[in-house]
Amino acid sequence: MSRVFNFSAGPATLPEAVLEQARDELLDWRGVGASIVELSHRGPEFMAVAAEAEADLRRLLSVTDDYAVLFLAGGATTAQALIPLNIASPGQRVDFVVTGHWGKTSIKQARPYVDAHIAATGEAGGFRDIPPRASWQLSPDAAYVHITANETIHGVEFRDVPDVGAVPLVADFSSSIASEPLDVSKFGVIYAGAQKNLGPVGVTVVILRRDLLERAGQPRADIFDYRSHVKGESMLNTPPTWNWYLAGLVFKWMLAEGGVEEFARRNVRKSTLLYDAIDGSGGFYRNEVAVPARSRMNVPFFLADPALDKAFLAESVEAGLIGLKGHRALGGMRASIYNAMPEKGVHALVDFMGDFRKRHG
Amino acid sequence: MSRVFNFSAGPATLPEAVLEQARDELLDWRGVGASIVELSHRGPEFMAVAAEAEADLRRLLSVTDDYAVLFLAGGATTAQALIPLNIASPGQRVDFVVTGHWGKTSIKQARPYVDAHIAATGEAGGFRDIPPRASWQLSPDAAYVHITANETIHGVEFRDVPDVGAVPLVADFSSSIASEPLDVSKFGVIYAGAQKNLGPVGVTVVILRRDLLERAGQPRADIFDYRSHVKGESMLNTPPTWNWYLAGLVFKWMLAEGGVEEFARRNVRKSTLLYDAIDGSGGFYRNEVAVPARSRMNVPFFLADPALDKAFLAESVEAGLIGLKGHRALGGMRASIYNAMPEKGVHALVDFMGDFRKRHG
Repeated sequence: MSRVFNFSAGPATLPEAVLEQARDELLDWRGVGASIVELSHRGPEFMAVAAEAEADLRRLLSVTDDYAVLFLAGGATTAQALIPLNIASPGQRVDFVVTGHWGKTSIKQARPYVDAHIAATGEAGGFRDIPPRASWQLSPDAAYVHITANETIHGVEFRDVPDVGAVPLVADFSSSIASEPLDVSKFGVIYAGAQKNLGPVGVTVVILRRDLLERAGQPRADIFDYRSHVKGESMLNTPPTWNWYLAGLVFKWMLAEGGVEEFARRNVRKSTLLYDAIDGSGGFYRNEVAVPARSRMNVPFFLADPALDKAFLAESVEAGLIGLKGHRALGGMRASIYNAMPEKGVHALVDFMGDFRKRHG
Repeated sequence: MSRVFNFSAGPATLPEAVLEQARDELLDWRGVGASIVELSHRGPEFMAVAAEAEADLRRLLSVTDDYAVLFLAGGATTAQALIPLNIASPGQRVDFVVTGHWGKTSIKQARPYVDAHIAATGEAGGFRDIPPRASWQLSPDAAYVHITANETIHGVEFRDVPDVGAVPLVADFSSSIASEPLDVSKFGVIYAGAQKNLGPVGVTVVILRRDLLERAGQPRADIFDYRSHVKGESMLNTPPTWNWYLAGLVFKWMLAEGGVEEFARRNVRKSTLLYDAIDGSGGFYRNEVAVPARSRMNVPFFLADPALDKAFLAESVEAGLIGLKGHRALGGMRASIYNAMPEKGVHALVDFMGDFRKRHG
């Protein structure tokens, strides 16, 4: 077995220790004689796994009891449809601040249900910066304001939580949750697909201020009703148990490593190392995002000579670095360096980039 | 490692060979140096896994090209909400034939969107039989007729596909798909949560006659639109890759074992053995379902003396048989004997039941 460094944007690399534990107990979970994949979600074994995962996530992110925590199927895109259904009236104004591809997706999902208003967008500038707060055209009667805390494709990240007054702030944290300390109390809803910083694909975390559940929302099936999911403790129907379990192992790993404070330090070190290598390459590599808005999780970069892209990708794989191809919307390269990417992985990438530049520059 | 026989209704037992393969390649999928859980869903590795799984399922169930096959998140309950959104007009009549708990759930999910009409129900008889076809009050203008092919809790199964004329037949096959040959052409939509006969929880199979996609349906988010999922080949957003992969391993296992024809033979043998043990127990055990409607997958049974339930469950666990507790809606016991339950597991159960009866009868 020879593990490579995997810079995929999600599904993404997982802590090796977590995969080893999952492997070792895959056929016999802690002596019960069956896999956790095979056990009833309503049995005492999985119920304990589920409750521990929630408690650990609450500890990790300091989530207070006035917030519900849900573990659901369907990904962040499903949450982008369910949030308007649950906390906006039919046709009500919702303000969107768009800083990249996923902000646009969130509008697409909400549009059948609400008056989706673009309060600000960085699209004219190619999503290379966050529109200044003073330019946002917010609506006092909006059901909520939606932001994308970190744009996985464009590599643009909010460094501070914007003040939007009394209107609840809803944020897609798919690619930056648990990457640094977070003041949950500033948000109405935080949601995140797990497959970047929290574990495996197939489970989505929704952290929801409980008073928002009192809103009538819109006609919807029971399975689309967050109140039912809260009441059913995320087991309204059979939840994705293995995915939830694996996320729980990741939470325990993050806590054991020192929690979000420690990951914030590592993520500053890792992203600084990589951006410095790009900025110090004499233009051989470039990142186009305004420095204060640069993501610590997803680092898109371009080679000055795109004719070298193929060689860069082929040689990086030979060097044991995979998943560096940029999203098709932007081209170029992208290194996703989530919590589970070890510092030595970023060192290996930076070394490779320097070496490649010497050989081809 | 000592594996027990697991009679859980779902999540349910998986083929040991499949779990062993998943374990052996969990840290390094076929030499790429990363887990399949960590690889991009858009990379060549997972794309191949996904395409193979679809091809294998099509082969297993003889699905022709005029049907789309989707691998989605959200479980069968989500499909119960999405089907009316996609193939019924707002408020249009839909006929439901209710033969147990899950038929009622399907109505609950559809009711916000359609005129949910109960064309027939076995509820008055405690869901112990299928209402005779002649008694069904079908509506010629219905968008579709919905049945539950096998009721997991009540243990009631359609042995034949009912003729409902020109109106499309939609069937929840969660707990009996691939348990015997199936004439897909008789259905408009077949859907199934995978966690019973197809593999792990967290992925849902939807087999959809393509002409139904031409229906306008109802206003809905893109992520709720089956047309978008078909166009996006079930990758409209990040799919539950590991779950899809594991289902694919189960499909390969089923094909290697002889396909649905072979499983039909095994399932007749297994269920006959168990029902004979119940019926031949002199009333010590009883199953209340009318013989022609008895499920070959889920066998609920009761002890004549419910005071013995606790001892039965405790002693069965000691005998290496788990998951026999009945659903809380019915009480008593339930043995789910899906494809992955080996015949020796049912023999072990029947032996235990005979032994328990001798000691307590």
